[in-house]
Amino acid sequence: MADTFHAFAALEQGKPLESFEFDPGPLGPEQVEIRVESCGICHSDLSMIDNDWGNAQFPLVPGHEAIGIVEAAGDQVKGVRVGDRVGLGWFSESCMSCQPCMSGRHNLCADAEGTIVGRHGGFADRVRAHWSWAIPLPSSLEAVSSGPLFCGGITVFGPIAHFGIKPTDRVGVVGIGGLGHLALQFLNKWGCHVTAFSSSESKTEEAKKLGAHEVVNSRDSSAMEKIAGTLDFILVTVNVPLDWDGYISALAPDGRLHFVGAVLEPVPVPVFPLIMGRKSVSGSPLGSPATVREMLDFCGRHEIAPQIETFAMADVNDALEHLRSGKARYRIVLTR
Amino acid sequence: MADTFHAFAALEQGKPLESFEFDPGPLGPEQVEIRVESCGICHSDLSMIDNDWGNAQFPLVPGHEAIGIVEAAGDQVKGVRVGDRVGLGWFSESCMSCQPCMSGRHNLCADAEGTIVGRHGGFADRVRAHWSWAIPLPSSLEAVSSGPLFCGGITVFGPIAHFGIKPTDRVGVVGIGGLGHLALQFLNKWGCHVTAFSSSESKTEEAKKLGAHEVVNSRDSSAMEKIAGTLDFILVTVNVPLDWDGYISALAPDGRLHFVGAVLEPVPVPVFPLIMGRKSVSGSPLGSPATVREMLDFCGRHEIAPQIETFAMADVNDALEHLRSGKARYRIVLTR
Repeated sequence: MADTFHAFAALEQGKPLESFEFDPGPLGPEQVEIRVESCGICHSDLSMIDNDWGNAQFPLVPGHEAIGIVEAAGDQVKGVRVGDRVGLGWFSESCMSCQPCMSGRHNLCADAEGTIVGRHGGFADRVRAHWSWAIPLPSSLEAVSSGPLFCGGITVFGPIAHFGIKPTDRVGVVGIGGLGHLALQFLNKWGCHVTAFSSSESKTEEAKKLGAHEVVNSRDSSAMEKIAGTLDFILVTVNVPLDWDGYISALAPDGRLHFVGAVLEPVPVPVFPLIMGRKSVSGSPLGSPATVREMLDFCGRHEIAPQIETFAMADVNDALEHLRSGKARYRIVLTR
Repeated sequence: MADTFHAFAALEQGKPLESFEFDPGPLGPEQVEIRVESCGICHSDLSMIDNDWGNAQFPLVPGHEAIGIVEAAGDQVKGVRVGDRVGLGWFSESCMSCQPCMSGRHNLCADAEGTIVGRHGGFADRVRAHWSWAIPLPSSLEAVSSGPLFCGGITVFGPIAHFGIKPTDRVGVVGIGGLGHLALQFLNKWGCHVTAFSSSESKTEEAKKLGAHEVVNSRDSSAMEKIAGTLDFILVTVNVPLDWDGYISALAPDGRLHFVGAVLEPVPVPVFPLIMGRKSVSGSPLGSPATVREMLDFCGRHEIAPQIETFAMADVNDALEHLRSGKARYRIVLTR
């Protein structure tokens, strides 16, 4: 049974994970098989286990921040070899031929396959992916803490790189968690003036250590008024409704309020302030493989790394509970 | 009484205009005085007469699409001389020293003065402005039809120029009226594939003559589904609530839904589609003086002009009624 993968799966919606074995079938000619060394846990693993978005299939093996060694490669694999240490994030395949793919925007491919959407992810001894999304990890980066870069990291790095954020910009980060703690590090090293927004006073000192030049309590209306009209870019990493009007007011002319957190309720956007200040509201999903490579290079140069807590993969249910409790600082990684 | 201006004013909110004379006081050192030859009527003249936005002061002399000859200039006036034919639009002054002004974005100056906000506009024999907003009209452009370029025209040209719309882009225009009929012309000559959205079948042929390659009835859900995911840029020139979800679906990856019509109700923006397609929702006010000059040059090169109906200025109330009725095709100009 060399072809049996040993994994942890939710057999039904919302249930604790259980040991689960499956036969993945033959390796595709453009696929690699990765022996998982470690795998980060992302909030969207919980969302998929709970089927919040209605697209989960059970049994479901979560895990889409995997680091591991390429153990096998199909005939048509390019850019990565057996023995390479790679990372695998939210996406595991894209069509390679549509207009977004052919213009380097594989993350916008309409047929992009999610690593844990209708297939099995990284809470396992092995996981497979199209070669394009198995991205070599530079040796300058520590393996165990790098998994979260491949989903949480690229989710916030993507828009910073894509929207032409300048080192002279004043920027804000809403939410100091798994994504936000990476955004603070990226934007500080990007050269920007960085404001962290948090409703939790307890995170002020930590936010500053992570790279925030100032911390604003978003529930303090006088503090919010004081920064009105000053920020060129505000990155929203939370997925709960907030006082969006206050954040739009905080934008400078030509400013952008950008969502990477999947806020479920529509955001009521007032048109007049957008018009008067030529402001934008936008969103984005992760980044392309080319941008992931840029991010990894940037992390190496600036010693940026996710701050992690580790759990043995066998203790995955304890780890999931820790994440649900909101106490993770800032990202959990399962090790094998 | 050489200093008396002869104008038409609304003495109270919502009232027909009446003959109105006023003494404008001494000419400022950086101001020019323009003898008005003609002046377009914009929907925002009606909004100001009706005090829809709560910022009107009465008596109110509307008119912010004026064409005329510079008759007097203060000591410190630059860039324009007595005898020049100029156009004056929505803005009549900006501070010249703030960060937006100093970076060429005078249209985003927080202290920019509206030509008819707390001062008197172009439904008059003369009107004044800071020299920077009295922009010389190239001799290649016909004077009487050019007034609407200075508000309606620059409102739609501004975002086309600013957001880097490419000739290879597929674009849409929502609303085929005073603004939309200019947007169709601009975008056609910009090289784009242009789709006009209209709920009125009667405008199909006209929209095509103006530059639309195709016309989509926005109330036809199967037609809207057919164009899902195809448009790089959709310019909304109306100010009424529509099925915004349908337009966001019509956007291609990296597409932008852009508002220049002051829709009063907040737009409920669904975050998930923004995230999946890296889409933006934005707005903008007119354009800077530098962009106005580019627009005028572009109009001359491509023989773009507002389609106008003319009324004598003395018949201003008839003209306003014609605009209110929705029958203007496509812009009304008052002549003296």
